[in-house]
Amino acid sequence: TRARDRGITIGVLPTGKWNAITDVPGVKVGHATLVKGDRIRTGVTAILPHDGNIFQQKVPAAIFVGNGFGKLAGSTQVAELGNLETPVVLTNTLNVATAIEAVIEYTLQQPGNESVQSVNAVIGETNDGWLNDIRSTPVRKADVLQAIQSAQSGPVAEGCVGAGTGTICFGFKGGIGTASRLLPAKLGGYTVGVLVQSNFGGVLQIAGAPVGQELGKYYLSDQLNNMVDGSCMMVVATDAPLDSRNLERLAKRAFMGLARTGGIASNGSGDYVIAFSTAGAARVPYVADQPVQTVPVLHNEFVTPLFMAAIEATEEAIINSLFAATTTIGKDGHKIEALPVERVMEILRQYGRVKGE
Amino acid sequence: TRARDRGITIGVLPTGKWNAITDVPGVKVGHATLVKGDRIRTGVTAILPHDGNIFQQKVPAAIFVGNGFGKLAGSTQVAELGNLETPVVLTNTLNVATAIEAVIEYTLQQPGNESVQSVNAVIGETNDGWLNDIRSTPVRKADVLQAIQSAQSGPVAEGCVGAGTGTICFGFKGGIGTASRLLPAKLGGYTVGVLVQSNFGGVLQIAGAPVGQELGKYYLSDQLNNMVDGSCMMVVATDAPLDSRNLERLAKRAFMGLARTGGIASNGSGDYVIAFSTAGAARVPYVADQPVQTVPVLHNEFVTPLFMAAIEATEEAIINSLFAATTTIGKDGHKIEALPVERVMEILRQYGRVKGE
Amino acid sequence: TRARDRGITIGVLPTGKWNAITDVPGVKVGHATLVKGDRIRTGVTAILPHDGNIFQQKVPAAIFVGNGFGKLAGSTQVAELGNLETPVVLTNTLNVATAIEAVIEYTLQQPGNESVQSVNAVIGETNDGWLNDIRSTPVRKADVLQAIQSAQSGPVAEGCVGAGTGTICFGFKGGIGTASRLLPAKLGGYTVGVLVQSNFGGVLQIAGAPVGQELGKYYLSDQLNNMVDGSCMMVVATDAPLDSRNLERLAKRAFMGLARTGGIASNGSGDYVIAFSTAGAARVPYVADQPVQTVPVLHNEFVTPLFMAAIEATEEAIINSLFAATTTIGKDGHKIEALPVERVMEILRQYGRVKGE
Amino acid sequence: TRARDRGITIGVLPTGKWNAITDVPGVKVGHATLVKGDRIRTGVTAILPHDGNIFQQKVPAAIFVGNGFGKLAGSTQVAELGNLETPVVLTNTLNVATAIEAVIEYTLQQPGNESVQSVNAVIGETNDGWLNDIRSTPVRKADVLQAIQSAQSGPVAEGCVGAGTGTICFGFKGGIGTASRLLPAKLGGYTVGVLVQSNFGGVLQIAGAPVGQELGKYYLSDQLNNMVDGSCMMVVATDAPLDSRNLERLAKRAFMGLARTGGIASNGSGDYVIAFSTAGAARVPYVADQPVQTVPVLHNEFVTPLFMAAIEATEEAIINSLFAATTTIGKDGHKIEALPVERVMEILRQYGRVKGE
Repeated sequence: TRARDRGITIGVLPTGKWNAITDVPGVKVGHATLVKGDRIRTGVTAILPHDGNIFQQKVPAAIFVGNGFGKLAGSTQVAELGNLETPVVLTNTLNVATAIEAVIEYTLQQPGNESVQSVNAVIGETNDGWLNDIRSTPVRKADVLQAIQSAQSGPVAEGCVGAGTGTICFGFKGGIGTASRLLPAKLGGYTVGVLVQSNFGGVLQIAGAPVGQELGKYYLSDQLNNMVDGSCMMVVATDAPLDSRNLERLAKRAFMGLARTGGIASNGSGDYVIAFSTAGAARVPYVADQPVQTVPVLHNEFVTPLFMAAIEATEEAIINSLFAATTTIGKDGHKIEALPVERVMEILRQYGRVKGE
Repeated sequence: TRARDRGITIGVLPTGKWNAITDVPGVKVGHATLVKGDRIRTGVTAILPHDGNIFQQKVPAAIFVGNGFGKLAGSTQVAELGNLETPVVLTNTLNVATAIEAVIEYTLQQPGNESVQSVNAVIGETNDGWLNDIRSTPVRKADVLQAIQSAQSGPVAEGCVGAGTGTICFGFKGGIGTASRLLPAKLGGYTVGVLVQSNFGGVLQIAGAPVGQELGKYYLSDQLNNMVDGSCMMVVATDAPLDSRNLERLAKRAFMGLARTGGIASNGSGDYVIAFSTAGAARVPYVADQPVQTVPVLHNEFVTPLFMAAIEATEEAIINSLFAATTTIGKDGHKIEALPVERVMEILRQYGRVKGE
Repeated sequence: TRARDRGITIGVLPTGKWNAITDVPGVKVGHATLVKGDRIRTGVTAILPHDGNIFQQKVPAAIFVGNGFGKLAGSTQVAELGNLETPVVLTNTLNVATAIEAVIEYTLQQPGNESVQSVNAVIGETNDGWLNDIRSTPVRKADVLQAIQSAQSGPVAEGCVGAGTGTICFGFKGGIGTASRLLPAKLGGYTVGVLVQSNFGGVLQIAGAPVGQELGKYYLSDQLNNMVDGSCMMVVATDAPLDSRNLERLAKRAFMGLARTGGIASNGSGDYVIAFSTAGAARVPYVADQPVQTVPVLHNEFVTPLFMAAIEATEEAIINSLFAATTTIGKDGHKIEALPVERVMEILRQYGRVKGE
Repeated sequence: TRARDRGITIGVLPTGKWNAITDVPGVKVGHATLVKGDRIRTGVTAILPHDGNIFQQKVPAAIFVGNGFGKLAGSTQVAELGNLETPVVLTNTLNVATAIEAVIEYTLQQPGNESVQSVNAVIGETNDGWLNDIRSTPVRKADVLQAIQSAQSGPVAEGCVGAGTGTICFGFKGGIGTASRLLPAKLGGYTVGVLVQSNFGGVLQIAGAPVGQELGKYYLSDQLNNMVDGSCMMVVATDAPLDSRNLERLAKRAFMGLARTGGIASNGSGDYVIAFSTAGAARVPYVADQPVQTVPVLHNEFVTPLFMAAIEATEEAIINSLFAATTTIGKDGHKIEALPVERVMEILRQYGRVKGE
């Protein structure tokens, strides 16, 4: 059950239909989950900004680096050109190259891309090396392609799936989580959707309640000393017509959402946010008919509600990743417990964040 | 009474002696408060990194821009050279130039600086134009110099003083706030101190409790629609030997602390963090005896506790600014209420964040 | 006489009508020159992007920091919001505050700005303290306002005028210089105009000829050891519809133009480029009629000719500043010689860069 | 024959012994050159900062993005942590993933790295797709490992070798080039070495002479309209004890060296500079004995000669790449001529840059 289904409300804005990144029209998500034998607990998650040929119809995009101890591929070109030309793919740290290869192959083979010779694959990662035999680089190109090809709209599988199969968050089993916010019509009626791969630490706070402390498991407590590092990949989609400059600002707000869960962006964390806009008229054609495009752009004065939406959706997406993930045993018998949801619900009642019995 | 004296605990780390930026040895704070007639509600706050000639003995420093709708002076030189050569001065938006002039004059007149011809004044500001007749630029150079010259160690006055005299935070009276954290000896025994000038909005959260919602006053609620803009200046001091790169990372964590109070870094917010290290051996002499200095630097692997300290101290400093500030009537009869502390304490009890009666 | 009038050709693109920043339609330049007694050799130069109320009709803009040992005001807001809301004003290092005050006053007093409470003044500077008694901060607000109010289109005075009155470049008298490039119609027919305040060092190269070496005056030669520091302010205007991201890229190319003159961006140099677009439909209104603006933007694929134009025009603007400046005696009897133009012409003939006798 | 051997002098500083990046003590370079059949013209070049286990003894480093239309891997971690933990590997655009895989494998297999689970491979690339069948991704891991393992000190092969096998520069055959500068003892006696992979366009200038114009081959001339895009990878090594902040500044100067050759950093160019310091005492251990390291750092005031050295060495390295490269026929019969060196020498004589017959 998701956090909201348990009566937990995060923030003040309403969610989209599925409370998922797929509430942004056109956005699709696919997973490839690798659970093999005793040692492989990893996978791939792909996020597609639209249904067409992404290389031919690029989307405005930006990347914000919260803490850069990570191997994200593709950031400098996104910053320079202000757009995204491939699916966003998430996986484990040592399989980034595999994902790049697969995304390039996928792009080169798309009809219409026969003469393309340069592809900027955007690949994010977190390190699942506690549960997963990461040094064996178990992800194959076929896994990546499967994640891309199986991407769909609608509800998104969360927890121990795809790139979240082997991750750890606040000392509990983390994984994939998602959430969305829908602005009222008078504020544009835009949707902001977020998907996270949670693999980081700090002092867990759920809807403001000090869950980490109550559970006695937090950074610098005895139990969690060595587990604070890790990373969080955050992907933010919106249908609002934001240009790359305002998308970078939006991305930065996702990082604020991470802070609200108790994340501290430790030294060893690779915390990145990839934000893009699906607004149709703002697409950037690979081949321009004419030098000057006329594009819609949301005026700076109207971006604040989107900022709040990104903060809230990120906070909820991270909590959702914890609610969905299940206890996992992996490499060398390492075992990571799921968040003890019933105990957490008690804590939330104690702190007035959900209604009592 | 400060938040902690009311039984509110923010974070998990212990505070320094005064729970103030001045817990970092050598750091001094001074205020000049301007309350004149019906229309002037503004002032100046100065933070000195050490007691000596700052220009001759610069300190490693960095500035992080959370949201750059602001007029902070001095950022590019701090980024390029990695150090701070003047006191940090905070004031109102339209008096930044006055503060630059005063800081230059102060620096040129310091003994030893007789031939200095270039001074990089670091001046922060927030906009107090709702309560203060900001267009009249009421701050004078003498006010700035008074703030600098009256700076002292020990407890720091908070609330409606200095640069916080006319500010508004979450729709209530904001102002100056401060807090600190002291790391245990085994983590280096370092202190991190923060001082803020709070003047921003969002959805107020105190120690995780949804105070803004309970009070019915938050961004996009009816009461607060037009008041979300504003800014937050944050100054972070530490005696840990961080170089400018790691100080920039530390500064970024203060912005995470702001997020934890419910701040959303709205479009119109100028949210800046200025961080510096007072570590003696890391000082940067204006005139170098020899080309190569040998300096202590904390290894990346040991910065995380400092990061958490900066997050916690910033969150608490902002809450302290609200607890200390008092109801203020200013320009055109505009009235901003203080945070209703007793009501807030009830809410915190309701949400289990302080002990009940 | 300007470089081009002496037969010197820099680059391969044609110039605009006046070979000046004012070739960009609507751009105006004004100077206030302060030469007083033996010790005051300084001034102010103002560049206006258009004729209207700039605060109400902001222009897309960006700032690139080549080397940030400087006190430029306004950079963080330009980066965050992507626009410029005041004239650009250049002056000396210790009078930046004066210029901020004047630009704020100018803006607050413009009809239509009666309720404005926040102004982001963009002020550049270089240090003219060798010839000018800079510690006495001789520029007054009235000087700044005069520069703004006297701004006009058409040919621009160069050399020892305005903010260039007391500057030094490659060991010779520097100053204000300007140049422009006009793209052919098939590349959009756009104009790029540049204005510089030259005050830096290195190894002077004119149209590729090693003038500094031939004159025996260059960085690390005996004559010039101590004079390499300084700065170069560069302002780039274009009527091409570039958004702030592409304007930042354009700004970076001006820095490449500086490199081509032999500039080395020494440690003590404050080398900044401020770029803006005057394209009418790309203006950013202070008060938006509606949230979504429809704006023209030049597609990335078509920016390269503009990049080359910015490189060439900056190189030529710097050389023009040297050709126009005259020998100046200032503070403490310091004397800086003009570039020995006739000797330089000989060198250029020797190196095949101008036609012989 | 190299440019300098033909009597061409670039800049004013003396070179190191080999006029190569390997003049920086400990730096090694290795190539793997792939010329297969009619269609494969590509390769790999590896630069090793020192002889030991780079992961265990990281070097201070920084990356500057001149123009980010490129797929460089590893930039965000270098920026965050300020160091480099692998060899730098250069290859073609679509084989970046192969190089990442190889560098990870190389690192994991180094003695002492048995438990390492995270490796930040720094891989640069340019697009050799005109001469090379880049879509077939012909580079194999073994090629990358061979380049690393064959790396050596001493003279460096230039031109059509390694990652330069298939590149094009100013419309002529480009490739690998290198150069160095040695500062006089009174300026520290430091060496700055540069290696480039040249694959870009503009208006070629050699030692200031307008070679591109004389040859009638330059951007916007009829012959070269479509060939300006491409990229330039620049690697800068020094034994001066620069921290990552000053290494970023040094890297930016290499980009100024590119400007001096006539490069314009076109829209489609991926121009990156990777700079590192080999200074022994500045190494960053993977496992720190103690939290606080005492490290030598060159004071800001003494970096300018290094800046000039980086500019000069980059300019010369690019020219060297052109002098060494030979006419190449590749994919689809595409033929790129070598720089016509004898004709160029005539031009240089005509422009006074080399002695006459």
